[in-house]
Amino acid sequence: MAGNSFGQLFRISTFGESHGVALGCVVDGVPPGLEISEADLQADLDRRKPGTSRYTTQRREPDQVRILSGVFEGKTTGCSIGLLIENTDQRSQDYSAISGLFRPGHADYTYHQKFGHRDYRGGGRSSARETAMRVAAGSIAKKYLFEKHGITVRAYMSQMADIKAETIDWDQIEQNPFFFPDASKLEQLDQYMRDLKKEGDSIGAKITVVAQKVPVGLGEPVFDRLDADLAHALMSINAVKGVEIGDGFDVVNQKGTQHRDELTPEGFTSNHSGGVLGGISTGQDIIAHIALKPTSSITIPGKTITVDGEPTEMITKGRHDPCVGIRAVPIAEAMMAITLMDHYLRHRAQNNDVVTQTPKI
Amino acid sequence: MAGNSFGQLFRISTFGESHGVALGCVVDGVPPGLEISEADLQADLDRRKPGTSRYTTQRREPDQVRILSGVFEGKTTGCSIGLLIENTDQRSQDYSAISGLFRPGHADYTYHQKFGHRDYRGGGRSSARETAMRVAAGSIAKKYLFEKHGITVRAYMSQMADIKAETIDWDQIEQNPFFFPDASKLEQLDQYMRDLKKEGDSIGAKITVVAQKVPVGLGEPVFDRLDADLAHALMSINAVKGVEIGDGFDVVNQKGTQHRDELTPEGFTSNHSGGVLGGISTGQDIIAHIALKPTSSITIPGKTITVDGEPTEMITKGRHDPCVGIRAVPIAEAMMAITLMDHYLRHRAQNNDVVTQTPKI
Amino acid sequence: MAGNSFGQLFRISTFGESHGVALGCVVDGVPPGLEISEADLQADLDRRKPGTSRYTTQRREPDQVRILSGVFEGKTTGCSIGLLIENTDQRSQDYSAISGLFRPGHADYTYHQKFGHRDYRGGGRSSARETAMRVAAGSIAKKYLFEKHGITVRAYMSQMADIKAETIDWDQIEQNPFFFPDASKLEQLDQYMRDLKKEGDSIGAKITVVAQKVPVGLGEPVFDRLDADLAHALMSINAVKGVEIGDGFDVVNQKGTQHRDELTPEGFTSNHSGGVLGGISTGQDIIAHIALKPTSSITIPGKTITVDGEPTEMITKGRHDPCVGIRAVPIAEAMMAITLMDHYLRHRAQNNDVVTQTPKI
Amino acid sequence: MAGNSFGQLFRISTFGESHGVALGCVVDGVPPGLEISEADLQADLDRRKPGTSRYTTQRREPDQVRILSGVFEGKTTGCSIGLLIENTDQRSQDYSAISGLFRPGHADYTYHQKFGHRDYRGGGRSSARETAMRVAAGSIAKKYLFEKHGITVRAYMSQMADIKAETIDWDQIEQNPFFFPDASKLEQLDQYMRDLKKEGDSIGAKITVVAQKVPVGLGEPVFDRLDADLAHALMSINAVKGVEIGDGFDVVNQKGTQHRDELTPEGFTSNHSGGVLGGISTGQDIIAHIALKPTSSITIPGKTITVDGEPTEMITKGRHDPCVGIRAVPIAEAMMAITLMDHYLRHRAQNNDVVTQTPKI
Repeated sequence: MAGNSFGQLFRISTFGESHGVALGCVVDGVPPGLEISEADLQADLDRRKPGTSRYTTQRREPDQVRILSGVFEGKTTGCSIGLLIENTDQRSQDYSAISGLFRPGHADYTYHQKFGHRDYRGGGRSSARETAMRVAAGSIAKKYLFEKHGITVRAYMSQMADIKAETIDWDQIEQNPFFFPDASKLEQLDQYMRDLKKEGDSIGAKITVVAQKVPVGLGEPVFDRLDADLAHALMSINAVKGVEIGDGFDVVNQKGTQHRDELTPEGFTSNHSGGVLGGISTGQDIIAHIALKPTSSITIPGKTITVDGEPTEMITKGRHDPCVGIRAVPIAEAMMAITLMDHYLRHRAQNNDVVTQTPKI
Repeated sequence: MAGNSFGQLFRISTFGESHGVALGCVVDGVPPGLEISEADLQADLDRRKPGTSRYTTQRREPDQVRILSGVFEGKTTGCSIGLLIENTDQRSQDYSAISGLFRPGHADYTYHQKFGHRDYRGGGRSSARETAMRVAAGSIAKKYLFEKHGITVRAYMSQMADIKAETIDWDQIEQNPFFFPDASKLEQLDQYMRDLKKEGDSIGAKITVVAQKVPVGLGEPVFDRLDADLAHALMSINAVKGVEIGDGFDVVNQKGTQHRDELTPEGFTSNHSGGVLGGISTGQDIIAHIALKPTSSITIPGKTITVDGEPTEMITKGRHDPCVGIRAVPIAEAMMAITLMDHYLRHRAQNNDVVTQTPKI
Repeated sequence: MAGNSFGQLFRISTFGESHGVALGCVVDGVPPGLEISEADLQADLDRRKPGTSRYTTQRREPDQVRILSGVFEGKTTGCSIGLLIENTDQRSQDYSAISGLFRPGHADYTYHQKFGHRDYRGGGRSSARETAMRVAAGSIAKKYLFEKHGITVRAYMSQMADIKAETIDWDQIEQNPFFFPDASKLEQLDQYMRDLKKEGDSIGAKITVVAQKVPVGLGEPVFDRLDADLAHALMSINAVKGVEIGDGFDVVNQKGTQHRDELTPEGFTSNHSGGVLGGISTGQDIIAHIALKPTSSITIPGKTITVDGEPTEMITKGRHDPCVGIRAVPIAEAMMAITLMDHYLRHRAQNNDVVTQTPKI
Repeated sequence: MAGNSFGQLFRISTFGESHGVALGCVVDGVPPGLEISEADLQADLDRRKPGTSRYTTQRREPDQVRILSGVFEGKTTGCSIGLLIENTDQRSQDYSAISGLFRPGHADYTYHQKFGHRDYRGGGRSSARETAMRVAAGSIAKKYLFEKHGITVRAYMSQMADIKAETIDWDQIEQNPFFFPDASKLEQLDQYMRDLKKEGDSIGAKITVVAQKVPVGLGEPVFDRLDADLAHALMSINAVKGVEIGDGFDVVNQKGTQHRDELTPEGFTSNHSGGVLGGISTGQDIIAHIALKPTSSITIPGKTITVDGEPTEMITKGRHDPCVGIRAVPIAEAMMAITLMDHYLRHRAQNNDVVTQTPKI
């Protein structure tokens, strides 16, 4: 319980259901003096919002965010920032058919068993709609990190089905609706999505998140390692089933001579570690990968039971993303930015004396 | 900072360096009335301790745990439990050669940059020696969960290099020094380890952790999902670079029809989700996989720099595990047990009214 | 930092400034199935709101609260509850005169020094306006505690200046604008307030909060004692300078024979302890007293300095409470209810086994 | 539950019972590079320990503290510090008579009801013996605060029975066994204690704690105010029934003109606030007062019940302090130092940008 907060020093606490009145967030721990506006937040929200291409759900969610507190004369005051997005396109009627059964692969069954009572409209609190607030809060973290240290946090889709990005062209990512960094595969992706829609099925995806110019020293021994907190942050995103740092599962078949990143006076010679050693950032790029499952909201019928335990069949209607991984790109960026921001402040609290002696952070 | 604690209601706080005076732990939140003894804890510690086979380091660490508080007349009192293991086989002299340089692939560099000062003896706080306390605390969680609900938490090595377990024989696991569930591969593993030792190299591994008889309902929306907290717990283990729940990274190339676990009046027809939907346990087996990197403590020399930034070469001497993944088996069990215990208490706090109405938990 | 949350399992996180766009709160950890409506919250808010009598500020703050999430079909879902009050009567122009100086006895100086930048409109985040959200969240806690166990949490003014309540008539409290339990002193209080207004001065007050039917066993050794958390909760209310449990400062001149509450088969023979022994509730009434300072917002000029350090004079204009203690009555109730609710859930998490054996809780 | 920790960034987690094997503490969040030794901690422990004068219990508790981790080559490493005191003078037999009844005024009854099972030897976890660890951890905080900013935290007994200190002579405090700052009252105190011993009774006391040279800006809006956290810290000390900041309960009968501390270019003209405005330190002395109840461990018989609910009589034998307030002096210092240390780090985390611009902190 009380699980709706994330972070220690930079902490977000969120509320809101898919088809409720509004989504909201308290962003606590923002240093004073940061220039921030609703437009800064809106830019990231617009990247996440549905209805932007034919590959995502056609629901219209204007996702217009308002800053209700914590910013005065254009700058943060150091007090908690309240964020709000009112839900305008609720259409509760679309979901009345599912109130009495458990959609397979969804949280309907577990919420019902846990709470004995659930908001069945569009998945209620378990819907990914909640992540809009993470994106808004993440924008604040991103802006602070960039202004202080030039830190950037960016994500892209590295794989969908068996279509893998083979080149990483950062400029390409925002040019296509898949956030895909390899332009040579776009046609293949487009064809795959068309076929998928015809089938009425969905597909998983792999997202890669990279933070650059992160100073050495972020992360705390031994439980609050930077990579452990990143794993928490990224696994908390809807549909994520796996998290890797650096070489991830490839290390199972690596030898020590292959994996260890050697050091020279010019820096590390490789980055198998993904920028984290002993749970602490090395100063190299922080690299994480996440696996997103295919959504269970598909038009192909599936077996399930009613809330009374009777067998029935589930047929999803309405507007859904065939690949929820696409819209996870800005969410993954937000969760990494929030985690880095929290650890940046934690590091500064304890190690300020060290920090002031070295130009590292 | 203040990163040496894990858990909300069942919380462990640890201290101790590889070659320091002692390791210790405060275990807070243990319900009163649980029968527990040092022997209960010792059983798991002995499974973790080095020197038990020719495949693990020959250091002798008796790891004799003492319970200093919180248990009276054989039963827990509900007050904090203090645990202590004194270090007896310190041999600090073995490590004097490494005080002035950064071992590649180790936390030496990041600790030095973060703290400006480090205990270089055997890795100090960054050594996996610290995990002995996790194992001891995990035994308390395991015992409570088993006595209350028959919950078991067990792990095994599912892969080393490209040698994969193809059958899972639970009885086999404690019979061999690899915690490997497939007896047909033991000879191959043995040969692989012999070759590795000759080379002076190390290898990664994949460990699988399974919890059975976990009631439905554990896990909290939206950030403290059970799977997110498990990812945090497991990624905080030394050398872990990846965490999967259920099908993990395989979902990237799965379709919705393949992945969704259908429901019938008799239960789920499959368990692709790994026992977690919407961050809440389904009542099925909880299944997680972790990837452990090959240790960088190998006898093959590697390039590195001194603390003054001069290039040099690193040659590890002394006693080291060629596959640190082996000894991670009881540690992974402990971290899953601790996470489940915490969520069991969190669930009971909020949802007791529901809990008493259903026989589920 | 990140200081805008209170509670572990029942946790509130608030935002909002006196003259900002809105006040809001995330209430996390509410058990599912509780019937709650905006009207339930409004009742307590109306008791706190200004403009209700000639003794409090004449500002109109309709304080209309909206529930934005966490309640479905009239019952709590177990997910976070979002609350919002939009500020309608802002009148920022009244405060423009104070933007360049530090009002003596206010937080202007400390906020300026801490944050380097402050919302000077009506005190910004340091204004007691923020407590409206505590009252709203407290109503949820009150309702749960009452429905489950018949627990009541009520407060009254026990002293203003040297006018002390000599009898406690619970029915009288809601009948007069002072929340005063002794009708024989009302005329004296009325005359005192008239004189004070003429002088342009303000006065302190003492508030007593009492919780009844609290089960034995709430509170955790050793830092999260019930009385310690109550002290935290009550001292966090604006203008509070002292907190007592039971006999409070009278114990300085008490002997052991006087103070110790003896036990008989019928129960305790006295309640000097205020219902807490060893930090754990005894089952008797929980009794706390708080001291509220006289507000510094008075029309009698006072010496101060500008933000540039130049000497100047402060003259408060506008609408202010001559005794801020009056409106603190519902706030004190709310903070005690929130603390009890948190400890009720914490107790249930760990001690459920014991709890089910005894009818005590 | 999990109530054995205090602090966010500087966090102590303790264990240990009065007559258990040992007391211990994990001190987390200590910045690296601080020179600290067991002797530094022992100095404060010796001030707290019993048996130092005829006015305190004659139990011998050598309280020899050991540092088990977190310090390397004489300096803190930034990793968690483990502290241990072994109990040497246990004499469990003295307490066997009380195992079957509830001592009035003690935690026996509440622990029994809460946990269903208790360590009755000397009060177990509820004994003030536990505070030895707070004193040891407080010494680390004190040393850091003093070395960084010259901050001092000192306490004295300001009143016992109706004997009040009228002058505060800091040099006098460590010269007498009462920690009393007014030498003219020592004879009176001595006589009072002799009479009390003859009667077999006990008496309450008032302790005053003062921190000097605290920079402006410590404390977080709105719940984690510096004064609120101090109230939490001080009320968590055994036997404390009241906490005041600055003028405390005197404010009830103060007017705004009296109370408000005016500002001049040379600073504040008075310190009624006790160094805290809006929950944030003003840069003046931080002043707190606490009230300690008379111990219930007195030789005059008192009515009570057995664990089976039968009426009986309690007669305390053995060695007890007639005024537990005396030994609370170093404990109160420790808890204020720990709280200031935590807030110092919290302030530095968020407001570092401001901090570097002003010479204030």
